[in-house]
Amino acid sequence: MKLLFELLGKHSVSGDESEVSQVIINYAKKRMKSWKVQPEIYFGEDFHDCILFKFGKPRTAVFAHIDTIGFMTRYQNQLVPVGGPEILSGTRLVGKDSKGEISCQLMEEEEVCFHDFPRGIDRGTRLSFEQNIRVDDKFIQAAYLDNRLGIYNALKLCETLDNGWVVFSTYEEHGGGSIPFLLRFIQNNSPVNQALISDITWITEGIHHHEGVVISIRDKFIPRKKFMDRLISLAEKSGIPFQLEVESYGGSDGREVQFSPYAIDWCFIGAAEDNVHTPNEKVSLFDLDSMLRMYQYLMNEL
Amino acid sequence: MKLLFELLGKHSVSGDESEVSQVIINYAKKRMKSWKVQPEIYFGEDFHDCILFKFGKPRTAVFAHIDTIGFMTRYQNQLVPVGGPEILSGTRLVGKDSKGEISCQLMEEEEVCFHDFPRGIDRGTRLSFEQNIRVDDKFIQAAYLDNRLGIYNALKLCETLDNGWVVFSTYEEHGGGSIPFLLRFIQNNSPVNQALISDITWITEGIHHHEGVVISIRDKFIPRKKFMDRLISLAEKSGIPFQLEVESYGGSDGREVQFSPYAIDWCFIGAAEDNVHTPNEKVSLFDLDSMLRMYQYLMNEL
Amino acid sequence: MKLLFELLGKHSVSGDESEVSQVIINYAKKRMKSWKVQPEIYFGEDFHDCILFKFGKPRTAVFAHIDTIGFMTRYQNQLVPVGGPEILSGTRLVGKDSKGEISCQLMEEEEVCFHDFPRGIDRGTRLSFEQNIRVDDKFIQAAYLDNRLGIYNALKLCETLDNGWVVFSTYEEHGGGSIPFLLRFIQNNSPVNQALISDITWITEGIHHHEGVVISIRDKFIPRKKFMDRLISLAEKSGIPFQLEVESYGGSDGREVQFSPYAIDWCFIGAAEDNVHTPNEKVSLFDLDSMLRMYQYLMNEL
Repeated sequence: MKLLFELLGKHSVSGDESEVSQVIINYAKKRMKSWKVQPEIYFGEDFHDCILFKFGKPRTAVFAHIDTIGFMTRYQNQLVPVGGPEILSGTRLVGKDSKGEISCQLMEEEEVCFHDFPRGIDRGTRLSFEQNIRVDDKFIQAAYLDNRLGIYNALKLCETLDNGWVVFSTYEEHGGGSIPFLLRFIQNNSPVNQALISDITWITEGIHHHEGVVISIRDKFIPRKKFMDRLISLAEKSGIPFQLEVESYGGSDGREVQFSPYAIDWCFIGAAEDNVHTPNEKVSLFDLDSMLRMYQYLMNEL
Repeated sequence: MKLLFELLGKHSVSGDESEVSQVIINYAKKRMKSWKVQPEIYFGEDFHDCILFKFGKPRTAVFAHIDTIGFMTRYQNQLVPVGGPEILSGTRLVGKDSKGEISCQLMEEEEVCFHDFPRGIDRGTRLSFEQNIRVDDKFIQAAYLDNRLGIYNALKLCETLDNGWVVFSTYEEHGGGSIPFLLRFIQNNSPVNQALISDITWITEGIHHHEGVVISIRDKFIPRKKFMDRLISLAEKSGIPFQLEVESYGGSDGREVQFSPYAIDWCFIGAAEDNVHTPNEKVSLFDLDSMLRMYQYLMNEL
Repeated sequence: MKLLFELLGKHSVSGDESEVSQVIINYAKKRMKSWKVQPEIYFGEDFHDCILFKFGKPRTAVFAHIDTIGFMTRYQNQLVPVGGPEILSGTRLVGKDSKGEISCQLMEEEEVCFHDFPRGIDRGTRLSFEQNIRVDDKFIQAAYLDNRLGIYNALKLCETLDNGWVVFSTYEEHGGGSIPFLLRFIQNNSPVNQALISDITWITEGIHHHEGVVISIRDKFIPRKKFMDRLISLAEKSGIPFQLEVESYGGSDGREVQFSPYAIDWCFIGAAEDNVHTPNEKVSLFDLDSMLRMYQYLMNEL
């Protein structure tokens, strides 16, 4: 889990994903010799801070977003959210501007957010939750498991993957915007008709810790029934524990696959977390393990 | 109206449109020999559950969505809407899951929807309004006239069409998602710069039964004035009864034509209904007749 | 400022931008011989009412929207907004329908808008704010400075521009829809990876008159940090006065660049105004001057 700890230590608020992007590139360069298949890697300014790995002859693309929610400084000591962070007064925030390192508290009054840093902070500075990783034999708890675990899953998948795209996207937490150009590149290079979204979902009245990876039948958007039927029947055959989710809210990179100019089926598959979009996101290690195994299984079978 | 009754008898909640898709394909295969022009037909997994007919050298594409609003089972006996159905306690719903046929009542308490089916229903099962078709000499009344009438109009148009695309889209009731790939296919195959949306709109204080098909000057989105001026002046020349609609809400497949990467003018043209998105949608047969005639006229003249 | 006055005198409510489009074409035809570089000009029905100028070998595209907010007549004496105009009872509105010129007052009761014109107005007629241009030595005040000033800036830029696209878009005030096809044309003809949005923003607690052009670090959407860092450092080097904006609401043509299928960095740069979307929009001439100079500087340096 050294990789996961390294990922959890980086800042990557939407629009500023270069640090995590670099970690992924460095990790791949160091480790890919031990991977079963050597992928072609696409990254750099033409791809903004996104990365694509192409293994063999892809039928399916896996998308893991590398950005996180957070805050941005406005005027005086105001903060505006990036994505949808939980607003809990007292939460520790960290960042950096032209004058140096920043560590402060989040405060809220009458639905406006502030920080308590003694000096002014440059306009437009991104602040992240202070990281605090806790692992025991049942759970991992930290800020930004959403979506460091999705990245981790995608990178572990690379070790054994024969055929498929593994794609690291940006901006997912703040409305998206990278999936359209990534999909265009994929479809022009080596097209697919299936996509899996490697991301983290929610513990709810129907989704519980330790009951396996979540396969989402819908969130705000709805994947195609024919594809879901096939995928769920494969999941059943796999013997890997999984739970079926039905939500009316929430979205993922799947939304932009749905609205893309390509007929690509998609499905969100990922472990569920408590304390969503807080510094205390909490995921069952059992569910994470099911996630890793389910991706390896499905990428072979789909 | 045998075709219309057959269409009204099928379930096709967004994301699960294969039954209606099959009815359309079967109908076309059986009837197209009597059509004036033999179209090229595109369908199958590459098009998900959508279908495209190409007649001659198209200048205009007609879009009719084949999905409907409905419900999906969540956890326990909860239901979540698909699209925007009217929530009326007591409404009869039908569907099917792994354990068999389902017939139950919709119930609402504190803005949460439930069903009263005595056994649990598989998560993610789609439920439709129970169908009850009523026709007299003035009106047709049934569930899902929106958009079975739009499909019916598009298929009747095929009988006499010389040039044009007739396209059956999915997901319209739930945010869309098929128009982008359909348009890309059209523009790469035989491009158009005009689109008509064959769909059903609303009776309002300005739109009345028996006053003709509705030509919509705007809903939430606004077609280009130059195109509307030309289209309305043709409609006036046609002698076919029509009404002009101006709304600030509502959308259609036209929305995705508007936001597509092609300069395509579009307009919504269709009969108006009462009791929108209930099992009792009601349309004037006179207005339906104007709709059929207006499409035949405009597809020649535009 | 004759050009600006001419632009301010035209009506161009979203979806009906042909008048302003014509002014731009006529101006360019008359003046382009004195421009440093002769652009290629693309316009006409294939581009709806949009216009593109290509200068040299573009690295960056400038977008200025040519539409404005306004109203559309509905049934009886009702009005529905186009875009988001401020609703102030008593505001003078003007327009034209099949029966002739219209001049009336806007009235609001219980969140519904009406007009007081003595005769009925054709359904779907667009009404604009009555124009009243006021200039002193510090300010210009008028209806529709948003975005006549953005157009003016783009056209002044043409005089000295070596390399770049200058693009006039439609529909920006009402959800957009022209940027996708304009971008597709640009990327197929002479692609860019940078875009500047020539538009007008808001005076707020952090943005003041006479303090220079506004460079927006974010509105509802967020440009990429790497690009903003480079752009702001250039702006600092320029010596031209500028202010940094951080907002959580509002959008521009930048939104559609963000969600396009191309990896194009973008930034909104424009003067700020008071009395947004009223007939009394007010912009500092000092800020307008900084805007003109900043575009000339950045289009060279980026």
